[in-house]
Amino acid sequence: MRTICVVVNSRANYGRIKSVLQAIQAHPDLNLKLVVGASALLYRYGAVHEVIEKDGFAIDATIYSILEGEKPTTMAKSTGMGIIEISSVFEQLQPDIVITVADRFDTLATAVAASYMNIPLAHTQGGEVTGSIDESVRHAISKLAHIHFPATKQAAEYLVRMGEDPETVHWVGCPAIDAIAKIDLSLPTNFFNQAAGVGATLDSDQPYLVVLQHPVTTEFGQGYQQIKQTLAAIAEIKMQTVWLWPNVDAGSDDVSKGLRDFREKYKPDYLHFYRNFPVEDYARLINNCSCLIGNSSSGLREGSYLGIPVVNIGTRQAGREHASNIMFADYVATDIQAKIMQQLAHGRYPSANLFGDGHAAEKIADILAKTPIKIQKRLHY
Amino acid sequence: MRTICVVVNSRANYGRIKSVLQAIQAHPDLNLKLVVGASALLYRYGAVHEVIEKDGFAIDATIYSILEGEKPTTMAKSTGMGIIEISSVFEQLQPDIVITVADRFDTLATAVAASYMNIPLAHTQGGEVTGSIDESVRHAISKLAHIHFPATKQAAEYLVRMGEDPETVHWVGCPAIDAIAKIDLSLPTNFFNQAAGVGATLDSDQPYLVVLQHPVTTEFGQGYQQIKQTLAAIAEIKMQTVWLWPNVDAGSDDVSKGLRDFREKYKPDYLHFYRNFPVEDYARLINNCSCLIGNSSSGLREGSYLGIPVVNIGTRQAGREHASNIMFADYVATDIQAKIMQQLAHGRYPSANLFGDGHAAEKIADILAKTPIKIQKRLHY
Amino acid sequence: MRTICVVVNSRANYGRIKSVLQAIQAHPDLNLKLVVGASALLYRYGAVHEVIEKDGFAIDATIYSILEGEKPTTMAKSTGMGIIEISSVFEQLQPDIVITVADRFDTLATAVAASYMNIPLAHTQGGEVTGSIDESVRHAISKLAHIHFPATKQAAEYLVRMGEDPETVHWVGCPAIDAIAKIDLSLPTNFFNQAAGVGATLDSDQPYLVVLQHPVTTEFGQGYQQIKQTLAAIAEIKMQTVWLWPNVDAGSDDVSKGLRDFREKYKPDYLHFYRNFPVEDYARLINNCSCLIGNSSSGLREGSYLGIPVVNIGTRQAGREHASNIMFADYVATDIQAKIMQQLAHGRYPSANLFGDGHAAEKIADILAKTPIKIQKRLHY
Amino acid sequence: MRTICVVVNSRANYGRIKSVLQAIQAHPDLNLKLVVGASALLYRYGAVHEVIEKDGFAIDATIYSILEGEKPTTMAKSTGMGIIEISSVFEQLQPDIVITVADRFDTLATAVAASYMNIPLAHTQGGEVTGSIDESVRHAISKLAHIHFPATKQAAEYLVRMGEDPETVHWVGCPAIDAIAKIDLSLPTNFFNQAAGVGATLDSDQPYLVVLQHPVTTEFGQGYQQIKQTLAAIAEIKMQTVWLWPNVDAGSDDVSKGLRDFREKYKPDYLHFYRNFPVEDYARLINNCSCLIGNSSSGLREGSYLGIPVVNIGTRQAGREHASNIMFADYVATDIQAKIMQQLAHGRYPSANLFGDGHAAEKIADILAKTPIKIQKRLHY
Repeated sequence: MRTICVVVNSRANYGRIKSVLQAIQAHPDLNLKLVVGASALLYRYGAVHEVIEKDGFAIDATIYSILEGEKPTTMAKSTGMGIIEISSVFEQLQPDIVITVADRFDTLATAVAASYMNIPLAHTQGGEVTGSIDESVRHAISKLAHIHFPATKQAAEYLVRMGEDPETVHWVGCPAIDAIAKIDLSLPTNFFNQAAGVGATLDSDQPYLVVLQHPVTTEFGQGYQQIKQTLAAIAEIKMQTVWLWPNVDAGSDDVSKGLRDFREKYKPDYLHFYRNFPVEDYARLINNCSCLIGNSSSGLREGSYLGIPVVNIGTRQAGREHASNIMFADYVATDIQAKIMQQLAHGRYPSANLFGDGHAAEKIADILAKTPIKIQKRLHY
Repeated sequence: MRTICVVVNSRANYGRIKSVLQAIQAHPDLNLKLVVGASALLYRYGAVHEVIEKDGFAIDATIYSILEGEKPTTMAKSTGMGIIEISSVFEQLQPDIVITVADRFDTLATAVAASYMNIPLAHTQGGEVTGSIDESVRHAISKLAHIHFPATKQAAEYLVRMGEDPETVHWVGCPAIDAIAKIDLSLPTNFFNQAAGVGATLDSDQPYLVVLQHPVTTEFGQGYQQIKQTLAAIAEIKMQTVWLWPNVDAGSDDVSKGLRDFREKYKPDYLHFYRNFPVEDYARLINNCSCLIGNSSSGLREGSYLGIPVVNIGTRQAGREHASNIMFADYVATDIQAKIMQQLAHGRYPSANLFGDGHAAEKIADILAKTPIKIQKRLHY
Repeated sequence: MRTICVVVNSRANYGRIKSVLQAIQAHPDLNLKLVVGASALLYRYGAVHEVIEKDGFAIDATIYSILEGEKPTTMAKSTGMGIIEISSVFEQLQPDIVITVADRFDTLATAVAASYMNIPLAHTQGGEVTGSIDESVRHAISKLAHIHFPATKQAAEYLVRMGEDPETVHWVGCPAIDAIAKIDLSLPTNFFNQAAGVGATLDSDQPYLVVLQHPVTTEFGQGYQQIKQTLAAIAEIKMQTVWLWPNVDAGSDDVSKGLRDFREKYKPDYLHFYRNFPVEDYARLINNCSCLIGNSSSGLREGSYLGIPVVNIGTRQAGREHASNIMFADYVATDIQAKIMQQLAHGRYPSANLFGDGHAAEKIADILAKTPIKIQKRLHY
Repeated sequence: MRTICVVVNSRANYGRIKSVLQAIQAHPDLNLKLVVGASALLYRYGAVHEVIEKDGFAIDATIYSILEGEKPTTMAKSTGMGIIEISSVFEQLQPDIVITVADRFDTLATAVAASYMNIPLAHTQGGEVTGSIDESVRHAISKLAHIHFPATKQAAEYLVRMGEDPETVHWVGCPAIDAIAKIDLSLPTNFFNQAAGVGATLDSDQPYLVVLQHPVTTEFGQGYQQIKQTLAAIAEIKMQTVWLWPNVDAGSDDVSKGLRDFREKYKPDYLHFYRNFPVEDYARLINNCSCLIGNSSSGLREGSYLGIPVVNIGTRQAGREHASNIMFADYVATDIQAKIMQQLAHGRYPSANLFGDGHAAEKIADILAKTPIKIQKRLHY
């Protein structure tokens, strides 16, 4: 019986690990300990912990680690605080394996704490290539991890080329696809709960856009100008639009300020702002949209499986593996607008299996239960 | 004119970067900012900051980050504290490039803070292979670093295989060799300053052993038994011996306790314990010893250049590149004793240039002054 | 020449110390070092640091210490973080005296750091009596402080009764009154800058209410219900209203959620929400309002001097000295509404000099320059 | 049933609260949660947690909070770290009342965390008067505490004069006396366990001195010179001496360095250094000594009850209530020596009941079980 501690730190984290939580719970040889921390605890980022509890998971510990400020300095300090706090939790829970998801500063904090505490570390979504500081951090985490669950074949190959022992690299597909693959993805009537979020009244029987654009940490200070370009493009198109607030990264304040300024100035009757959707509802939301716009990896990841038309803006996903459903735009309103128009004209794409076929979670749980673990790593060349 | 911030966190750090500090100071296009932190500030670990100031360097900021306890948990927390503290210093000093040395938890703290603050990171001694948690951490730091100064040809090759852009990998040799290559390494009369440290009176005209054995973090809890084996071996040989206290890693307390217990119980008249030597004196110390024993990388690094007979104990240096001067022993008194006897019989080895020829620092300074820097990294395959 | 370090941590802090900053700057024997931290740096709380810089003060250091969450636990942790960060700043600035303002968790952090670093501590607004955790914290800070600048005669007497040496207790009046006493307090045409904040268009030629209601930390969990009562009262009156967002204390999220929920649900055309006003504009705002409602100390402090009709709600100011301009209401909509109606009927009150006459700052600066200081305190009985 | 959380942070703490731990355990309406932190966890300060476990108490949580350096800055930062860590423990344990002991930085950390988390705080040893920063901190803690257990009548009176509600001030005597009053205080044969500590062989049948001298934080930087005076006095007397290492306060390194330098230089055959004694053994040790020397409060507290001749050096206990058994000396070797000679000539004093009669713990437990608690404090005048 192995105790597996999963640390969920953001709404994005949760969507990409939820099926694994279920699979661990269901596995006879595994014992789940769930830690929720960082922005997943904050109202401003959708109070994801409430969603998690509504989904029936018991939270074993919570970690407040976000130092407010959304600056490069506070991102660094939040990482430090995360390490300090999560190590106390590990001390208390004594897990056999810790799972950390993807490439964020809280993901790194989890990885560092586990490493120095001699706790085997499993990592999902390693080996992928993108922009932003996430690119460096993702690979740094892989170098600390003992068990790898890459989502794509190329990511698995990259991990081995980076010197990870092939016996520890398990290509299982992305758990994010699991949820999508199993549920009814049609849009329920009256899908848009007007009480949630702020802004215009939306009609779920009409076509709509979805925008989700995060700050790019390595371009800190440019977020306000960047989001203005996207807003200008949408203002030209004026199709009804679901806009999600950005994540907690450095520069988040700039993006949010751009959104608030626009909203107060133009009082647009086609925009509604949301903080968060439950995982399945987010899948339904993007599955039925006319175009997904911004720089969320969900456009490339879930989007490729769903065949959604996506306009990806800027550098955040630069270099990431993707299917044919993506068009890339610069931080230029006219370019963004043109690409959206092209995608609206094109419509839906065929489904691509790049990020797996919806069975990642069971495979992960099985491997967690059985794989031999060696705490001392060694570059494998 | 680029401002280069070097962070020195331990006595080992200092010996391996001192020549670079001098080269930066001497370079017309570079401005040195020196930060001293972690165990380099502590009396228990030799008050290295005092040595640094005696050497004529001005310290621009100090960082207290060591959470006392020498446990895996406190190592993790010290890393977190280090990030929190160093980010304030970077905010104040606004460096163009930060240099971090080797593979310790404070090295990682520096790397994480610089990364999230979009400050280009240079890293020395990357790409090497060893045991302990240092192995994972070293490679994780490489994945965060923008400029690499590996010490050996193989390390440089490994960095490129790990996906680092070859244009950022500069094989320059190890700065630790620079100091050694330029000074008179003979032992001055009355070298052993009896006032420093505690223990037996040593005679620098007679042959002597040097022992430096650190805890192995990934074998936490076994340090007391491990050091007892080494002590038993030395107790059999009873040659006069310089023993250095271990570093600040988790398990340090166990090793120290082993040393103190032995000292109080047997009151050995052949052992003298030291906290620290100035960099050059440490080179003289090991250059003239009959055998260097323990698990310090200096046996493999400086030792290969000097041709010192070394007995390396246990896993801490497992897999590290080395010359013919090393014999490996298990944590077993009889094995350690036998290997020491063999080395005493063999005597000195020829010098090996594995870790460079003593000109690393100037090359590093030149590259720091001129190399183009791109803050956004990308896996290079 | 003494170096005086003032730490400003919130918009309220700033209004109550601004005249002192000016007086220190103007004093020939004093050297001002200004540190800005905690919520004074955050956009959500009005980005007070920008106001400070517009006012012509140079900021010597900034401190990010707010751990997001607005919970009792995060308030505690933010205090801890504040101590860790401010001590580094004191180490760098080496002040002769530190000034800390009032009774907030960041005020306490400043006091604790100065105390353990043997830096003489001056404290403004000590000796007052209120509700909330501020009550305990204010007196705890007085026990750490070496120089006291109480605002009222009674506060000065209380400090001496609490065991403070009378020679260190200087009754000078409240610096918050200084600014008010010297400027034109009439409302400029088009005072309400519609671009700032969100909500209804306000007309500065018409009567208006001002509401500022903070969470009460010792009643954590009740904030949402409490603010609903106030909102219900205002909704009955429907006079145009300036509503200020609450401060960063535990429970702030509950209050904010109440405000946002109300705003989205009722889309009130008489409410405008602001984050912050410059100090002088805030004085003009409340000086010309028909009634100030909530639980801000400014109703009792500045309000008594200005003779503003105030309805104070709940326990936060319970026991605080006040003039005749205050009516007290429970957390009950009908009670709040009734008291507002009474105040509207009554109109303006005569000015009271309870909190001084506007010359506190010069007195404080003079004392800071000349007073003898003994670092070792002793209960004075 | 109330859950009482006691936080023990040092060897001194433990001796002064041990009888209370037992009384809480024995009380039918109380549930004990024991937290051990700060220097009580460190080998260098006697690994008090091991003593606690040997005494049969279960430790519910441990807190590593000591930032190494023994400087004023690190004391401040350790306080911050203590708050951050203890708040997580309170979150987990959910105590009804927290007990904090005396006046140390870790005591303050506990008090601050409990305060902001709305947890009722009980405080022992409040209202006393001494030197050092402990003086300010003790009173600050009293202003945060909801339930007071002063040790002396005068301390109880002072608390009320300081504005504490008399109904919350319970004069119960000092729990430190409880243990002493109930056990056989004669010295067992072969009391001095030569394996523990370092130094000369001591004979428990011969007269001996005990020295315990801590750094004075408000005189930071003078510790080395101060301890040299005491060492010089003892060197003149040359009676066999038990010397205890100082506590963790700023300046501890200076004192320790003085001790080590002396030991290595003079190799005194009359000094033995100990890190810690179990509570009862410490009572036996001082009960049977010829004179207790230094600045520990145990000379004035336990010493007055036992009637031990004490020479108190310097300012640390300045102003503290005491019986006739104390002679005060300056930091001057000749003065210290002279006072010790006087005390040796005088011999034992009659027992004084100043700090209680040995029944504090049961009274404390009873009050903890029954006393009504109001979380909102108010200055009581």
